[in-house]
Amino acid sequence: MAKKDKIRRPKAETPKGFRDYFGAEVTQRKAMLDKIAEVYHLYGFEALESSAVETVESLGSFLPDVDRPNAGVFAWQEGNAPDGDWMALRYDLTAPLARVYAQHRNDLPTPYRRYAMGPVWRNEKPGPGRFRQFYQCDADTVGTSSTSYAADAEVCAMLGHALEAVGITSDNYVIQLNDRRLLSAILDIAEVPTEGDARGIVLRAIDKIDRLQEHGVRDLLGEGRKDDSGDYTKGAGLSASQINIVMGLVLANDRLEERLARRGSRARDEAQTDEMDALDAARYSIRSETKHRWPDYGNGRRLWNFEMIEYLRELYFESDDGKRGVEALAEMVEILTALGRNDHRLRVNPSVVRGLGYYTGPVYEAELTFEIEDDKGRPRQFGSVAGGGRYDDLVTRFTGQAVPATGVSIGVDRLLAALTAKGRIDTSPAGPVIVTVMDRDRMADYQSIVGTLRQAGIRAEVYLGNPKNFGNQLKYADKRGSPAAIIQGTDEAARDVVQVKDLILGAKLAQDASLEEWKENPSQSEVPLAELVPFLQKLLS
Amino acid sequence: MAKKDKIRRPKAETPKGFRDYFGAEVTQRKAMLDKIAEVYHLYGFEALESSAVETVESLGSFLPDVDRPNAGVFAWQEGNAPDGDWMALRYDLTAPLARVYAQHRNDLPTPYRRYAMGPVWRNEKPGPGRFRQFYQCDADTVGTSSTSYAADAEVCAMLGHALEAVGITSDNYVIQLNDRRLLSAILDIAEVPTEGDARGIVLRAIDKIDRLQEHGVRDLLGEGRKDDSGDYTKGAGLSASQINIVMGLVLANDRLEERLARRGSRARDEAQTDEMDALDAARYSIRSETKHRWPDYGNGRRLWNFEMIEYLRELYFESDDGKRGVEALAEMVEILTALGRNDHRLRVNPSVVRGLGYYTGPVYEAELTFEIEDDKGRPRQFGSVAGGGRYDDLVTRFTGQAVPATGVSIGVDRLLAALTAKGRIDTSPAGPVIVTVMDRDRMADYQSIVGTLRQAGIRAEVYLGNPKNFGNQLKYADKRGSPAAIIQGTDEAARDVVQVKDLILGAKLAQDASLEEWKENPSQSEVPLAELVPFLQKLLS
Repeated sequence: MAKKDKIRRPKAETPKGFRDYFGAEVTQRKAMLDKIAEVYHLYGFEALESSAVETVESLGSFLPDVDRPNAGVFAWQEGNAPDGDWMALRYDLTAPLARVYAQHRNDLPTPYRRYAMGPVWRNEKPGPGRFRQFYQCDADTVGTSSTSYAADAEVCAMLGHALEAVGITSDNYVIQLNDRRLLSAILDIAEVPTEGDARGIVLRAIDKIDRLQEHGVRDLLGEGRKDDSGDYTKGAGLSASQINIVMGLVLANDRLEERLARRGSRARDEAQTDEMDALDAARYSIRSETKHRWPDYGNGRRLWNFEMIEYLRELYFESDDGKRGVEALAEMVEILTALGRNDHRLRVNPSVVRGLGYYTGPVYEAELTFEIEDDKGRPRQFGSVAGGGRYDDLVTRFTGQAVPATGVSIGVDRLLAALTAKGRIDTSPAGPVIVTVMDRDRMADYQSIVGTLRQAGIRAEVYLGNPKNFGNQLKYADKRGSPAAIIQGTDEAARDVVQVKDLILGAKLAQDASLEEWKENPSQSEVPLAELVPFLQKLLS
Repeated sequence: MAKKDKIRRPKAETPKGFRDYFGAEVTQRKAMLDKIAEVYHLYGFEALESSAVETVESLGSFLPDVDRPNAGVFAWQEGNAPDGDWMALRYDLTAPLARVYAQHRNDLPTPYRRYAMGPVWRNEKPGPGRFRQFYQCDADTVGTSSTSYAADAEVCAMLGHALEAVGITSDNYVIQLNDRRLLSAILDIAEVPTEGDARGIVLRAIDKIDRLQEHGVRDLLGEGRKDDSGDYTKGAGLSASQINIVMGLVLANDRLEERLARRGSRARDEAQTDEMDALDAARYSIRSETKHRWPDYGNGRRLWNFEMIEYLRELYFESDDGKRGVEALAEMVEILTALGRNDHRLRVNPSVVRGLGYYTGPVYEAELTFEIEDDKGRPRQFGSVAGGGRYDDLVTRFTGQAVPATGVSIGVDRLLAALTAKGRIDTSPAGPVIVTVMDRDRMADYQSIVGTLRQAGIRAEVYLGNPKNFGNQLKYADKRGSPAAIIQGTDEAARDVVQVKDLILGAKLAQDASLEEWKENPSQSEVPLAELVPFLQKLLS
């Protein structure tokens, strides 16, 4: 033993923060991504699979998450030499897209519309449930018009379509719309200084409105906030009047609710429609056939987005940047109305902050609205599963030319978790039929049986471990989730029959059956070899 | 200008040796892999997606290609710190499988049967057509019986099945079988020294028999060989009698051909069958119903593999290791016979050398037998697209326990190239229908049109670039391979019609049509908006 212990064996484990995906984890994700790709393709997007490795130079320092400034990439030098060029694993699919478009722009159509699905890597401190390799699933339009937001509207429609295609029902999600310029304009109007970290603190505070509510956000905009655990978070140090200006945006939803309530909520649907037509019929150019297509949810929200845009037009009366943001939202809402999507699934929400620093115009986020239980059993909204926006400057880095782009990224693992939580994933076991080995010299016969089953499309395999212990073979079938085990000893072979063990029924009997039922053993049948295929087809159906 | 030039812009390019895959390159590969995965699943294998990053310790130094000893991995240290643990990108899918099995063996069924598809990375000097990231597609059985080669036979059957599923017809490939122990035994019998590089030189020389023929291999086994360019390759320095022993294996195919010819080729089929039955009927246990299923190709080859095994039994009469190799081949051939695959698609070929140092038993290789033209227009056999074998020691590294394993790896890019060369890939353009923008204020209407088309399952998009130049919109449609462009100006909108340009017919007319035909412009039609879907469905069918 002492001698044996001296052998230095490598540890069988992934590096910290990495993991493996087994069986259904892989195929369920693939099935989901296949459905999403089908929607993206239908919308005219082409597949792109860019290199997983990029030069560090071309990746730049656009690491996405403002909350985690230490986030980094996995990087190394060519030839592991001190003067070798640096390369790194991609940390998202957007930075590589900018590089691909800049590199191939003379050969690619413009706009270039591509979807991409694959792993990305982040050199972050791993934690529970936070992995350093994960999937993204993106669709972007690069080189779109700089004056129209049709591409942004289309992405929102497509995102909704994709969510519904994978099994999120239309009452279980909402796509929230905002424009980055509303946020920066309100900071300009409130004269929040651009130097220092005040603007960052304000944006992060706005993003927490759902959790901290009005008073919590006000604290963070002002002096600071002590949370329940006693931890103190430094505030942005704004004055009371500055805070009020910012809160005018943050609380836009509440303010608009109040305004509509004052008008009399009972007559709201009708009132809004009339008002709408009068206010801005030409701008929205809603043709009657489109309007008829609107589902009537009877909750008065169908024109919410128009009302919100009017509210924002008033709020940003004096800001050119803000006005541009509001009109971008107005164009998107108009198009989404034409596409029949301006209903409870779409909400203009000016307090949405998307983390990515590179957004320059509209931003959007898909939120799942059903509740799940958190770690402590408390119900909470599932929350965001996808988001995106317009980023006009990413290609400019390479070419110096302005190339407007917009696109969305789906958080693959989160969406899969949501589908699992809602029971929308097929988790029934579908292991192979196992042909057991009773007599190892007759392996060719057993292989011939599985050959026949496979020809009939029945998933099947011969037990390929050491056949000495028959119990191990049945344990194996159990572990594989096999629906049936086939047994053929010398006696059965001579009579050209097999024994079929129905393992699903067997498992049920093991739980429920009385001793008498058990003795009858209805889960095992003798079947002529020639009738095995139809017998199994019936058992499996 | 001078000022602008000072801005340092990153170069838009992949690191050397990496590339991007666009559109059909991605979807064609995916379609092929999906079909292969379906076959693997049918045979009972489960999906596995292991981490792309492994510890350098667990990867070990099993880099596959003996011809390229400098091949390496892309590696870096945790936190880029000099004392950080080393991690690296996986260079194949087998080393990670060994780690996964060792790590999770208490939870996984044994045997563990998994397939895996994905990119691997090699830190090699890039060259024309040689990339540092490429796809592999593997299936392996880990923890199989140590005394039966049924798992190896099954993989060969599955490999053939997979090739046929993706479109390689059964007359276009052959699976060659060998056993590593035949090679090492012949080196033992010939007393080739184990120290130094003699054995490596011999194996590489054997591998070149098809290209260098007998005299070239003999030169390499002896003093050495000068090639056509004048370059000299050092030989293994064997004596004439040593060379003769090795050539007995290398030339086994020719020797067996000669022996069968001496027996009289006309009566060969019948003679072999009789001889076979007499020789070893019990061992092969070919039941009459199995025999009847054999296709009769009339070229006498259907029993070739049995003859070859008899030849090898004679050759290895005195070597225990060699005998074990021959009997492994005999068992595999018996099973493949039972599966109806012992025909022109299967060939026991003792001169097959698979590069990987870790193989310990049977090795197999799928070769495509049709010819393609090489760079210089000369016809050559397409060659190998997949290979594998038994490796009993990879898991032992981690656990100290013997865990026999066997599996196959398909060269994804080569197989895709083969399918393309044979015209088995659907390359018809399937771009989206493009709805052009005549009037940018009516974007919502255009979006409404594509919305309707997409609802009918027609791939479509609105032109989302700058719409000012209409010619650019048609050029875009052309570049996307669009089947049709939809045009609706103010006049058409008022009459609720659209113009449909049939771009496929248009392109044909542009090539062939007379001036009169051209003027008639049969490729453009006015279609009522309400009839657009059926009109396009007909045009696209």
